[in-house]
Amino acid sequence: MAPPATIQAIDPRTGQAVYEGLVETTQEELDSAVHEAHDAFSTWSKTPDRERAEVLNALADALDAHVEELVDIAEHETGLGEVRLTGEVARTSFQLRMFAQLLDEGELLATHVDEPIEGAPPVGRPRMVRSMVPLGPVAVFGASNFPFAFSVLGGDTASALAAGCTVVVKEHPSHPNLSVKVVELARQVFVDHGLPASVLVGVRGLEAGVSLVSHPLICAVGFTGSQVAGRALLDMVNAREVPIPFYGELGSLNPAFITQAAMGARRSELAAEAATSIMMGRGQFCTKPALLFIPDDQEFVDELVSKLSEAPTGPLLSPAIRQRFIDSVSRVSESSGVTSLVADDDASGLSVGAHLLSVSLEDYLANAHGIKEECFGPSAVIIRCSDDTDYLTVSEDLEGALVAAIHAESGADQKVVNSVVDALSGRVGRIVMNGWPTGLAVSPWQHHGGPYPASTSVLHTSVGGQAMMRFVRPLVIQNATPNQWPGLTSI
Amino acid sequence: MAPPATIQAIDPRTGQAVYEGLVETTQEELDSAVHEAHDAFSTWSKTPDRERAEVLNALADALDAHVEELVDIAEHETGLGEVRLTGEVARTSFQLRMFAQLLDEGELLATHVDEPIEGAPPVGRPRMVRSMVPLGPVAVFGASNFPFAFSVLGGDTASALAAGCTVVVKEHPSHPNLSVKVVELARQVFVDHGLPASVLVGVRGLEAGVSLVSHPLICAVGFTGSQVAGRALLDMVNAREVPIPFYGELGSLNPAFITQAAMGARRSELAAEAATSIMMGRGQFCTKPALLFIPDDQEFVDELVSKLSEAPTGPLLSPAIRQRFIDSVSRVSESSGVTSLVADDDASGLSVGAHLLSVSLEDYLANAHGIKEECFGPSAVIIRCSDDTDYLTVSEDLEGALVAAIHAESGADQKVVNSVVDALSGRVGRIVMNGWPTGLAVSPWQHHGGPYPASTSVLHTSVGGQAMMRFVRPLVIQNATPNQWPGLTSI
Repeated sequence: MAPPATIQAIDPRTGQAVYEGLVETTQEELDSAVHEAHDAFSTWSKTPDRERAEVLNALADALDAHVEELVDIAEHETGLGEVRLTGEVARTSFQLRMFAQLLDEGELLATHVDEPIEGAPPVGRPRMVRSMVPLGPVAVFGASNFPFAFSVLGGDTASALAAGCTVVVKEHPSHPNLSVKVVELARQVFVDHGLPASVLVGVRGLEAGVSLVSHPLICAVGFTGSQVAGRALLDMVNAREVPIPFYGELGSLNPAFITQAAMGARRSELAAEAATSIMMGRGQFCTKPALLFIPDDQEFVDELVSKLSEAPTGPLLSPAIRQRFIDSVSRVSESSGVTSLVADDDASGLSVGAHLLSVSLEDYLANAHGIKEECFGPSAVIIRCSDDTDYLTVSEDLEGALVAAIHAESGADQKVVNSVVDALSGRVGRIVMNGWPTGLAVSPWQHHGGPYPASTSVLHTSVGGQAMMRFVRPLVIQNATPNQWPGLTSI
Repeated sequence: MAPPATIQAIDPRTGQAVYEGLVETTQEELDSAVHEAHDAFSTWSKTPDRERAEVLNALADALDAHVEELVDIAEHETGLGEVRLTGEVARTSFQLRMFAQLLDEGELLATHVDEPIEGAPPVGRPRMVRSMVPLGPVAVFGASNFPFAFSVLGGDTASALAAGCTVVVKEHPSHPNLSVKVVELARQVFVDHGLPASVLVGVRGLEAGVSLVSHPLICAVGFTGSQVAGRALLDMVNAREVPIPFYGELGSLNPAFITQAAMGARRSELAAEAATSIMMGRGQFCTKPALLFIPDDQEFVDELVSKLSEAPTGPLLSPAIRQRFIDSVSRVSESSGVTSLVADDDASGLSVGAHLLSVSLEDYLANAHGIKEECFGPSAVIIRCSDDTDYLTVSEDLEGALVAAIHAESGADQKVVNSVVDALSGRVGRIVMNGWPTGLAVSPWQHHGGPYPASTSVLHTSVGGQAMMRFVRPLVIQNATPNQWPGLTSI
């Protein structure tokens, strides 16, 4: 008999194994896990909003209380650095508390009433009360690049729990021990509140993930990851007998634009900010600015090259991600007309440094297919434009993206900004004026999504209060009053 | 060269052709139609809400102004009767005006602001403004059974237009000349308002429909029809390179329950109401009560048999629908333990009458697969139960449905109602207390949808104000104020 398959954590800083291997979830265990989450749904879905809010706050407290231990594991498994990881824990607990607050405020899941109107239809109508009911057990696939904020207790889980759904988390193989630890913490919180531990269940392994999205009891899927993996899961979901929503946040080639006027006014600041935004999280952000549409301005390029060359090299999240990054950058740099301005990988075979490529607008337009490849890591492509009006042309040609940034001068650039924003509004989910796309705020009306391939479900967001609405559906109860049916909660 | 394919209207009352054959849309014409709707989108999507509301009202006025002519064509093509069809025009214009009113009220598409907060994240944040933007050109597939309310200017079109989307309507082949006429009326209204006629475009033919849902410029699909056709279209949509939402409202086997107490209190009324609800629109409603879970009460059954036997026979919407109805009823009646109580088809070969089948709870549970087949037409199956607690058992076993009805006595039946409503809330989109499921009100908070197969998109409704939200997506503009960027409308 073959030994059971295991997942082995690798410290990307050393390339060496850390911690013991974790045995993958078998098909039988996966089926049990989903059934446990299904059983727990009957309790959690009926837990009043106010109590669900308390539990979300307690989950946040548990993360905060264990921040040092969690960051230590995360640092061994991701190499993202203590400062960043500590900040990410704070962001994750903040996010849980935001959903708790939204539940307390009550507006998102509020019940609405159409009062009865006497008379014949279409004007006349009975009394109708619309409430929102949770979908059922939900599958959540965490991302490698946010081991807290888009993982076990990240935005998908927090919003699904807030909605009243239970969650089966597919633990990410690039931070497996951290995932196990966070799952344990969460389950203890549920138990401490007199709830079934299986309001959240963890499973691991590729096969478990495949079976999870195909399981008849799973009612929705939240996914953050690559376009290839996301599309594969989407196709599996589409093959189900009963369709369910698949909320995939996939890759995104985010554009940034700098007008002539902005360049003239703020060249050095913009170069420094661009470098920071490209390098943040070592470029492993879905919000990284990947395509920089700028005037053909040698001074700016020189300053950006200088800033990027100063940035330290470092490991990516895993050896596989590092290799994919190197391969993608290599492919893009071989596109006709593309030159490499910075290529700072060191010889360790573990770390990568910044990569900056440059291409003329003409070559970009002629070879867009080759250049528009997401390079997940610290890289960007400069597209040298001759006039601000070029930005309208390229905006109309962009694929769906999560976010775009525009650097422009109020007053002088009104016209070009109006037209570019208009074109971008059909192609992206968020437009940042005079800022950079990285650093996504967690707030009630935030939107993190966008036309495919940025997202598989263009109506929905994976960050912000509205993320909760992905996991509830409407129910109307007609012709009943609390007076007649005091036991019904939704009338 | 083969002659062009045509669609020939058939008068279901006579089985004879009426009107001239209509030439099907060619692939080239389909592509042009979508491009026209795409071009018109740039105008319509920027037409202010208030003006869109005026146009919706004008569309309603146009329907009302032509009601006699439209009903005459509809009666020749559907045989649904003048009273019903006139009422349906009123419902359809009422619905257009409801969306106009919702646009005027402004809440559904309102812009929301997260005001900036000073300081570092996660608490600190920039100013973010979330608006809703329309998706783009939308495909709408009308239904045979509502030639107005779920057709060219029906709920899908009205809500898509309200959202700012343009519409390509796949005209239904069972009312083709009516569709052409309504498309003409609508296009004239757009032109009269200085808009492109192609805010709405009509196409016809099966191949055109298939190409329509696969066309890269189409951004969403609204469909009302059979489970077979809907699933086929869904699978085509799923095969697209760029996924788009498919809002399919497919078949539904709607359950109705009568408690012992309600039966004792209101036997005769319930029998009469049940017969009316089953026969309404000759049973060709997606809201028809199909499964009647009732006490084993011979008096009720006798009264229901009597009422159904008195109901006049009549044609179904098309010869094909008539044949499918006869075949489905025949299959269900052959299930083990099923007996036929009413089978009133006449010998004309055109009309059908009521069909009532009956089965014990035990046989229903043993043969549910054979009995749970939608029979689109005037039929229902009685399931004879021995105790109200049986209703909980069967509720937990139901497939997704649009609507359930419960007849119960306030007070005495609290407990059984609470438990059945709880079970049903996971399986249906609407629960009617002491009423029947037919007669769906058009109102802001109505919900017409439900778990698959009732709907392919469980979060959304095809009737009511929220239907509009299927055709918009969020856009956040970050870090901008109207002061700085007065030309941007969404900040």
